Amino acid sequence: MRPMFFAALAASILLPAVVQAQDLAAKAAELRDKALADPTAYELVESLTTEVGARPVGSAGMERARDWGVAKLKALGFSNVRVEEFQAQSWLRGEESAEVVAPFPHKLHILGLGRSASTPRGGVEAEIALFGSLDELTALPPGALKGKIAVVSQPMPKTQDGSGYGFINRNRTLGAAEAARRGAVAYLTRSSSTDDTRLPHTGAMSQPTDAPVIPAAALSTPDAELLERLVARGQPVRIRLKMENTFREAVPAWNVVGEITGTEAPDEIIVIGGHLDAWDPGTGAIDDAAGIAITTAAARLVAAERPRRTIRVVMWGAEELNDSGRAYGAAHKDEVARMVVVSESDSGDGPIWRVRLPKGSASHPAMRAFAAAVAPLQVVLAPEPATGGGADVADLVRQGAPVASLSPDVTRYFDLHHSADDTFDKVDPKKLAQSVAVWTSFLYTVAASDIDFRQLAAEAP
Amino acid sequence: MRPMFFAALAASILLPAVVQAQDLAAKAAELRDKALADPTAYELVESLTTEVGARPVGSAGMERARDWGVAKLKALGFSNVRVEEFQAQSWLRGEESAEVVAPFPHKLHILGLGRSASTPRGGVEAEIALFGSLDELTALPPGALKGKIAVVSQPMPKTQDGSGYGFINRNRTLGAAEAARRGAVAYLTRSSSTDDTRLPHTGAMSQPTDAPVIPAAALSTPDAELLERLVARGQPVRIRLKMENTFREAVPAWNVVGEITGTEAPDEIIVIGGHLDAWDPGTGAIDDAAGIAITTAAARLVAAERPRRTIRVVMWGAEELNDSGRAYGAAHKDEVARMVVVSESDSGDGPIWRVRLPKGSASHPAMRAFAAAVAPLQVVLAPEPATGGGADVADLVRQGAPVASLSPDVTRYFDLHHSADDTFDKVDPKKLAQSVAVWTSFLYTVAASDIDFRQLAAEAP
Repeated sequence: MRPMFFAALAASILLPAVVQAQDLAAKAAELRDKALADPTAYELVESLTTEVGARPVGSAGMERARDWGVAKLKALGFSNVRVEEFQAQSWLRGEESAEVVAPFPHKLHILGLGRSASTPRGGVEAEIALFGSLDELTALPPGALKGKIAVVSQPMPKTQDGSGYGFINRNRTLGAAEAARRGAVAYLTRSSSTDDTRLPHTGAMSQPTDAPVIPAAALSTPDAELLERLVARGQPVRIRLKMENTFREAVPAWNVVGEITGTEAPDEIIVIGGHLDAWDPGTGAIDDAAGIAITTAAARLVAAERPRRTIRVVMWGAEELNDSGRAYGAAHKDEVARMVVVSESDSGDGPIWRVRLPKGSASHPAMRAFAAAVAPLQVVLAPEPATGGGADVADLVRQGAPVASLSPDVTRYFDLHHSADDTFDKVDPKKLAQSVAVWTSFLYTVAASDIDFRQLAAEAP
Repeated sequence: MRPMFFAALAASILLPAVVQAQDLAAKAAELRDKALADPTAYELVESLTTEVGARPVGSAGMERARDWGVAKLKALGFSNVRVEEFQAQSWLRGEESAEVVAPFPHKLHILGLGRSASTPRGGVEAEIALFGSLDELTALPPGALKGKIAVVSQPMPKTQDGSGYGFINRNRTLGAAEAARRGAVAYLTRSSSTDDTRLPHTGAMSQPTDAPVIPAAALSTPDAELLERLVARGQPVRIRLKMENTFREAVPAWNVVGEITGTEAPDEIIVIGGHLDAWDPGTGAIDDAAGIAITTAAARLVAAERPRRTIRVVMWGAEELNDSGRAYGAAHKDEVARMVVVSESDSGDGPIWRVRLPKGSASHPAMRAFAAAVAPLQVVLAPEPATGGGADVADLVRQGAPVASLSPDVTRYFDLHHSADDTFDKVDPKKLAQSVAVWTSFLYTVAASDIDFRQLAAEAP
């Protein structure tokens, strides 16, 4: 009888959890289907891109975006809606132009990079030195590029997971500093993009304190290839570049926050969101109105279930120059221990093709309920745990917050991001709804359960 | 024996023609395969787009294009290479900008249309009146648009045969005049394009003498859709537009000509070609370096066979404002009777999906040889005869020259044409080679035979 007794005892102990998991799975599936039919996220993207548009930090657009965020969160029934001000860097674009002046004249399509210097008022004209990769450039000694405009023309591989961006992106973030260290008067890089249009893609540079700050811009893909063909003819290629922009070390910026207050454990906080600031050439539809919209719409759907834990949606206000995550982490360091999980949506409209959960959590009943709910949505539950999570949650993760990564397919994302082509028409409502459905399922199973990701990670092998 | 006698007689009469057709077919197939492997056309497009680039009439680029054409025709072994000067209109773009100033500020991506007026120096700012089609606009009485900026936002259908362009294009060519007649101060139209980038597509307008000339520009597709969304909110939408450009009634322009002189019937002339001028935003790769390259490369391949008739390649020099065909027709009216057939390549790199032959010629042995040669190339030989042939041969056709249409698939062409995206990287060498192969087969079977398209048309039912 002993074995039977133990079996009965085990069943009685496990039963509540199993029942809870079944309820979770059923409700998560119900919310998933509601999300697939919910127009809220698409409407939010339409509204932000139409009524606000471009919104770099330090612009009037970003002030309007802040007010938009507050109004939308209130209208959608969020609690504790607030604006958290901090100081951030601001780089604003002025007039820009570039042209090949020899051996054959051509206008070039460029976009200055964030933190770039301006040129002298009359512009700078110089012979170019073209490199197939940044390694070719950094192999040169100091002074080797004296008086030259350095150009790196390496193309970005197109990948579903975005690894092509990480692979190539130091050409944008570090190339100008490396060129400046070798005496270059300006720097051009083929856009960190996967498209073939004449629209360049901007983005931030790092600004190492030990390198001169020189004018730096991204070339469109066809313009980079034109330079390659001109250089291949063996004659010196000369470019004239004019840029004027405004860089300020500290301007007001704002993280906009709203909450679904938990019914039983309001102090246990799930922190999600996207970023509200956006580069100026487009209207910030996929980067990152989509992320704002997905997380807001998902939280709102879960709100109707009165979840036991608090869901906090943050519209981070200075992601592009990487200031809002740092500011948020500093302001909320005392809360990190109470953050159940953090996750940012900052890779476009979707569909989500892969989820990485916090370490050791995949077999917990709540995550099994989540997995069951998203099984029809063609999502891979990856065996490896999430590690990063995006620029705005990185500081929280560094401080110990568990993190989950819900990864959209970015095969097209890098055709558009940081370019004038980041506009509302590029957002696919079906893909967006799939993303909301995955987020809703995840949020619900975490917020309605007592899953403890820290404990599961500590117990994991 | 009578029946046998007649059969033998018939065979002896037809035999030379049948043998000739077999020879034609075999040689056409041989030339087709040479064309498929020939890099000449691709190299010509590379050269023109890299070493010349943008080349509107009246620009330094067009002068360099003229010299490029002469040099290339000579280098490729053409005879009688010459420049035929004529007078043409010139419209050159200056600074342009447009922005929504209310209800929400947005920069707009525009390109002024050929023959547009400039705005006053400070620009023009006005409320817009948005129309879903030009018919909605023309339904209004005189004065109905007084002080307004009229906008037509009709999208262009994407079609393989380009009929979507013909369907929509009067929005560009006639819209400004219709708006001006009703009192509008400026006119914007959604680009005659099938893409979804922020790159607008320019193009010529007609300039009716009975309508005021007002500033007119094309909007990119996403910008037109943004205006639709703004208007849908019910508040007045105001736009500020600045344009400065230069219009000249008569500047020098040039048709560049080279020939493969016929060995037996040099006075029988096959006139083919593309146009050398190109809109300024791109480098004129598909419009129309491709046409120049396809026809030049095909003529050169046939030259090696020493064809009995003359093949004349014309690089027309002012197609975009529709001046070079008129000038060519006037200058060569005495030759039209000796023109065997005329045909222009002005729809991109290919592949050619349909051929329309001159009326009544499809069953002639020469055209059956052509059909046999191109059978593997997935070309439809259409039952209906060619009628148009392109702007540069239209005047010759009007004067009685037989015409053939070798039609490229333009499904992607109108994503690119007249925009900054018309660049070398968009040209597909395989598609281009297929086009050269079709042209080579056609040219050879016409130039090496004595097919008389006029007589066949006259005899056709």
